[in-house]
Amino acid sequence: MSHNTFGHLFRVTTWGESHGPALGCVVDGCPPGLRFTLAELQVWLDKRKPGQSRFVTQRREDDLVKVLSGVMLDADGETMTTTGTPISMLIENTDQRSKDYGEIARQYRPGHADYTYDLKYGIRDYRGGGRSSARETAARVAAGGIARLVVPGVTVRGALVQIGKHKIDRSNWDWDQVGQNPFFSPDAAIVPVWEEYLDGIRKAGSSIGAVIEVIAEGVPAGLGAPIYSKLDQDIASLLMSINAVKGVEIGNGFAAAETSGEDNADEMRMGNDGTPIFLSNNAGGILGGISTGQPIVARFAVKPTSSILTERQSIDADGKNVDVRTKGRHDPCVGIRAVPIGEAMVACAIADHYLRDRGQTGRLK
Amino acid sequence: MSHNTFGHLFRVTTWGESHGPALGCVVDGCPPGLRFTLAELQVWLDKRKPGQSRFVTQRREDDLVKVLSGVMLDADGETMTTTGTPISMLIENTDQRSKDYGEIARQYRPGHADYTYDLKYGIRDYRGGGRSSARETAARVAAGGIARLVVPGVTVRGALVQIGKHKIDRSNWDWDQVGQNPFFSPDAAIVPVWEEYLDGIRKAGSSIGAVIEVIAEGVPAGLGAPIYSKLDQDIASLLMSINAVKGVEIGNGFAAAETSGEDNADEMRMGNDGTPIFLSNNAGGILGGISTGQPIVARFAVKPTSSILTERQSIDADGKNVDVRTKGRHDPCVGIRAVPIGEAMVACAIADHYLRDRGQTGRLK
Amino acid sequence: MSHNTFGHLFRVTTWGESHGPALGCVVDGCPPGLRFTLAELQVWLDKRKPGQSRFVTQRREDDLVKVLSGVMLDADGETMTTTGTPISMLIENTDQRSKDYGEIARQYRPGHADYTYDLKYGIRDYRGGGRSSARETAARVAAGGIARLVVPGVTVRGALVQIGKHKIDRSNWDWDQVGQNPFFSPDAAIVPVWEEYLDGIRKAGSSIGAVIEVIAEGVPAGLGAPIYSKLDQDIASLLMSINAVKGVEIGNGFAAAETSGEDNADEMRMGNDGTPIFLSNNAGGILGGISTGQPIVARFAVKPTSSILTERQSIDADGKNVDVRTKGRHDPCVGIRAVPIGEAMVACAIADHYLRDRGQTGRLK
Amino acid sequence: MSHNTFGHLFRVTTWGESHGPALGCVVDGCPPGLRFTLAELQVWLDKRKPGQSRFVTQRREDDLVKVLSGVMLDADGETMTTTGTPISMLIENTDQRSKDYGEIARQYRPGHADYTYDLKYGIRDYRGGGRSSARETAARVAAGGIARLVVPGVTVRGALVQIGKHKIDRSNWDWDQVGQNPFFSPDAAIVPVWEEYLDGIRKAGSSIGAVIEVIAEGVPAGLGAPIYSKLDQDIASLLMSINAVKGVEIGNGFAAAETSGEDNADEMRMGNDGTPIFLSNNAGGILGGISTGQPIVARFAVKPTSSILTERQSIDADGKNVDVRTKGRHDPCVGIRAVPIGEAMVACAIADHYLRDRGQTGRLK
Repeated sequence: MSHNTFGHLFRVTTWGESHGPALGCVVDGCPPGLRFTLAELQVWLDKRKPGQSRFVTQRREDDLVKVLSGVMLDADGETMTTTGTPISMLIENTDQRSKDYGEIARQYRPGHADYTYDLKYGIRDYRGGGRSSARETAARVAAGGIARLVVPGVTVRGALVQIGKHKIDRSNWDWDQVGQNPFFSPDAAIVPVWEEYLDGIRKAGSSIGAVIEVIAEGVPAGLGAPIYSKLDQDIASLLMSINAVKGVEIGNGFAAAETSGEDNADEMRMGNDGTPIFLSNNAGGILGGISTGQPIVARFAVKPTSSILTERQSIDADGKNVDVRTKGRHDPCVGIRAVPIGEAMVACAIADHYLRDRGQTGRLK
Repeated sequence: MSHNTFGHLFRVTTWGESHGPALGCVVDGCPPGLRFTLAELQVWLDKRKPGQSRFVTQRREDDLVKVLSGVMLDADGETMTTTGTPISMLIENTDQRSKDYGEIARQYRPGHADYTYDLKYGIRDYRGGGRSSARETAARVAAGGIARLVVPGVTVRGALVQIGKHKIDRSNWDWDQVGQNPFFSPDAAIVPVWEEYLDGIRKAGSSIGAVIEVIAEGVPAGLGAPIYSKLDQDIASLLMSINAVKGVEIGNGFAAAETSGEDNADEMRMGNDGTPIFLSNNAGGILGGISTGQPIVARFAVKPTSSILTERQSIDADGKNVDVRTKGRHDPCVGIRAVPIGEAMVACAIADHYLRDRGQTGRLK
Repeated sequence: MSHNTFGHLFRVTTWGESHGPALGCVVDGCPPGLRFTLAELQVWLDKRKPGQSRFVTQRREDDLVKVLSGVMLDADGETMTTTGTPISMLIENTDQRSKDYGEIARQYRPGHADYTYDLKYGIRDYRGGGRSSARETAARVAAGGIARLVVPGVTVRGALVQIGKHKIDRSNWDWDQVGQNPFFSPDAAIVPVWEEYLDGIRKAGSSIGAVIEVIAEGVPAGLGAPIYSKLDQDIASLLMSINAVKGVEIGNGFAAAETSGEDNADEMRMGNDGTPIFLSNNAGGILGGISTGQPIVARFAVKPTSSILTERQSIDADGKNVDVRTKGRHDPCVGIRAVPIGEAMVACAIADHYLRDRGQTGRLK
Repeated sequence: MSHNTFGHLFRVTTWGESHGPALGCVVDGCPPGLRFTLAELQVWLDKRKPGQSRFVTQRREDDLVKVLSGVMLDADGETMTTTGTPISMLIENTDQRSKDYGEIARQYRPGHADYTYDLKYGIRDYRGGGRSSARETAARVAAGGIARLVVPGVTVRGALVQIGKHKIDRSNWDWDQVGQNPFFSPDAAIVPVWEEYLDGIRKAGSSIGAVIEVIAEGVPAGLGAPIYSKLDQDIASLLMSINAVKGVEIGNGFAAAETSGEDNADEMRMGNDGTPIFLSNNAGGILGGISTGQPIVARFAVKPTSSILTERQSIDADGKNVDVRTKGRHDPCVGIRAVPIGEAMVACAIADHYLRDRGQTGRLK
């Protein structure tokens, strides 16, 4: 399992399990001189933390992030300045209900990593999913909070665009709505539909998948690499690394398969101010692996939560047939909390490519 | 552009432009003792090479691969045995029509990397797309030919499953059909439909997108990593690195968003022979980033060829508005030739993870 | 500063400054199923910790290591078993005397990283040297403690072989002596000489350099790589990464320059038990970058502590000439405490190459 | 053997054996817009090529380098401009005397990689040492030729400073002498001494070791990284990767062990022109892993050529005792031809750190 790090110059290493004392990450390569407060960083973790509505898991974790290294504190006792050294962040696990894991410790829950972890490692921390728990993503969100500081002027925002078969009406898109409902929906009209739909799923102890869209604006043109480590490739790779993600698209994505060359071409014209203008953005802001200066658009599909109340057939570690029913506090739609995680991954990819382009210390800023 | 390498223990570095003397790759980390002939390797390149039907570009390249290092030749003068040292392979560019690049050298063709390369590097090899030419993928296919030798018993096969809105009927899936038609279609029934459809597009000088599916069978369980460098993440990353790819799916992919937890669960039972059996494969053969032993299933969407005969609005390197029309020999649907490329990428990802799991020299084989 | 990680499959990321709340490391890639207690791990940190004799700094740090992730605790509450997930370790900084850093915050101490850090980053944590403090090496020693568990049967031991011009008599070499004196000397006879010599240096507020030798026994043959990432290269690289190290040797090292081909050849004969025997070990256990099965022998030179009481000419951050005199608690010979650090680095390099050879989970063990 | 690449942003991958059709390298990450001619590149290869005096091997190789990708040719047909894409370079093996390798194919020559390669890989290209042949270093020298173009104003020069016990008189150091004798000696006075000494060794079929010093001037301050990937660490690592190297030093190196803190301190003063001046350079131009702007000074020790005419005891692949005597054309002192190789390695390390600091495209130049 020697691959808990991502990034080439902006490097993030995460560690920790669901039920250990803490989890966290080390952000290596952050340029010096960036300033932030703990409160500003906590905002991102609060977006992801559980228990914020009846549509997400009722596990209660404060997810308070601590910064252990890599910064100097101002005289105000609040503002931190990065020094260029590795930033170690830690989040304590506070809601570890002691319980009898007897059964779950041996059973392979369908859709979970139980079977493959045991197969590969011969040992597995079964408590709350161990390393495969979505709690790991709290560390990603913390890292994303630092990444957002790296590229001046960049805004990375995500939204939920589909739950089950219910898609938003894109003509209703309003970023201001995203913070106004428990789904990160940019379409106010679909909120009651989703509420009713998810209430049904939740009460049935079932779950459902979702699609998230992340848009990064203000990304300088010229970030990326032509062949391998394309900017879109690295974004896709990081989104695909999120638990439960099964598909990733850039720009018009799979719809490109049904599009003609004429319609797919993002035509250009010189603007009145002498800067080039793209007349459309089917490419999702990236051509040949390199950013164009347009908004970067990525989408990813999240499968339904594997933990459900309905019995499913499976086997256990002793090779016996069992019927598994996962009790406990689960997200009926993990896609909701995946919104800030997707944002964090896109922010990290952009920060990494920015530093590759501009240098370790981001001097050109 | 310091990222022309992929893989962690099975590492591939590609080099070369469309119109230079040659292109090629170095495959580093191939275990010793694997045996093959040049003819066996050439099979994969022949699948990808241009000019094989009226539905692909009429550029004529033999794409004959040479092996310059990393092997010892048997007394038969044909069979090579890998020694564990880097395998350098080279493919000459033979069809470089000399022509006047005057206009194209300055114009930014919509959908191509022209604009972003110039922006990032300030210089660009405009001949045939230079480094961004799909010719680079010949080197990937050669590397994939070596990768196929690494894991005993693995079969990696691809097929075209959609052109434009025309999808195959999956109940017709027959691997034997794939080699019998110019589209790598596993569904014989759709071949005449695609022929007529693509003839129209070809004659109009237009182009269309496509979807490819790659399936790897015989992959040992236990390959992959839990968090970053998940096997599905690495497959998605490599598929996304192929020119013109805009979306990637594993298993049921985006359809997972519309699926309930009950339906999505791949249930298990112990087989009569004492080995575990999965009753379905929504996961696409990977759970928690680690292979389950089931077939690995990946799909990717390719956008329509950007080079079309219809004029599109753009700008040139001098910041002037121009109308671009790309003459020359182009693929009406680049997705067709992407089939062997996708296979190669999946084969490389599996070989890499096999060596991470079993060690540099693949001793456990 | 995006390079606080080393290793390819056994990867160590360290973080932390001298005067922050804590420092630590994440050990990624440790195979599952290794067992240890905190007390066993602490042994290595105790070897390195300050204040153990009058010949090392009197700073008082307990350097108690905590394990935050990557293990499961036995019912005995003491024994831990690695799960294959990243092992996060943390050491609190307890002896952070609050003091006025006014002068030192602006002055560039000769031999220290003050000047270059300010030049590169424009900001610098001047408290106790910040990131450049030798306290960072506590994290390395913790990582080395884990590395020692990876390869069965390996023993990695270090000794001080030279202080100033005073070299040990190699014919007196006795490993049992190493733990019996404050210098890690394998030669009991030199201990009083070094005591008197170092007392003089200490009282004068001066400092002196040293040479350390590390020997690894029981290393399986076949670890390493032929060209880049040679085992000796990776050992040299890690030893050179230790603060204050200015030279590294493998086997007979610089003496090889004065040796003839006849004398340098390590001749071989088949042993009576049918295994090959080397008749000498000028190579230091590595041929062509790959371990031979003989003991691996590495030496490194440490410069004198830069912090001395004598005034030295320098400049400050404002470009003014200053005379610097470093008060405080310093090691008269940092080479002494470099012994366990050198051991840790060699242990990590061997563990990494073992996993490259045998695979991520070390299955062949 | 998955590690034939070095560098992080300026990446070099070498390939090829002694007796295959060719060897070469791919230089990835070279910034765009650098200009050179093939003749300028060939100069460096000519410095390394065999057969130039009676003191080096009489094997005859022209070592003509070809550039296959990554450049555009000027109208003059000579000047090339880098485009930022990977530069593939190839050198043909022309002097492959066909001979009977019967004995040598099975015998393990002492000091060579024969034993360890067979042990690790179970197969070995015994022709001329295969991959472990010093011919591999021709590719390094070609890469170094490109690296020299990356950092404006940098000069990297090497010299032989010791053969056997015969050291140069450093007070005679004259760079102009280096090109005037067959030893790359900067001290004219020692040339006749070395001639007579080496003639004796050559005629006896023996060999002797040497020490090489490489000095890089004009390196900008601020290159490097504080903890791992220190500039001196990366230089040491690359020098140690050269065949037959057993020791590496930076600045005063092992002599630092015998130096007091007072003497070792490189004092500073502000110069009349307002720039800081170092009054000495014990540090070898690097403090805390980061360049100071002073000349970078590195030394490395090369063991005597293992191929000698005197019989040495060894074993063969069948586990039988044999006496090995290596006939053929060998260097009596491989250290001589190591001078341009050492230069190349230092140039590559500097180029890599320059790009890490300034960005992929070296924009700040």
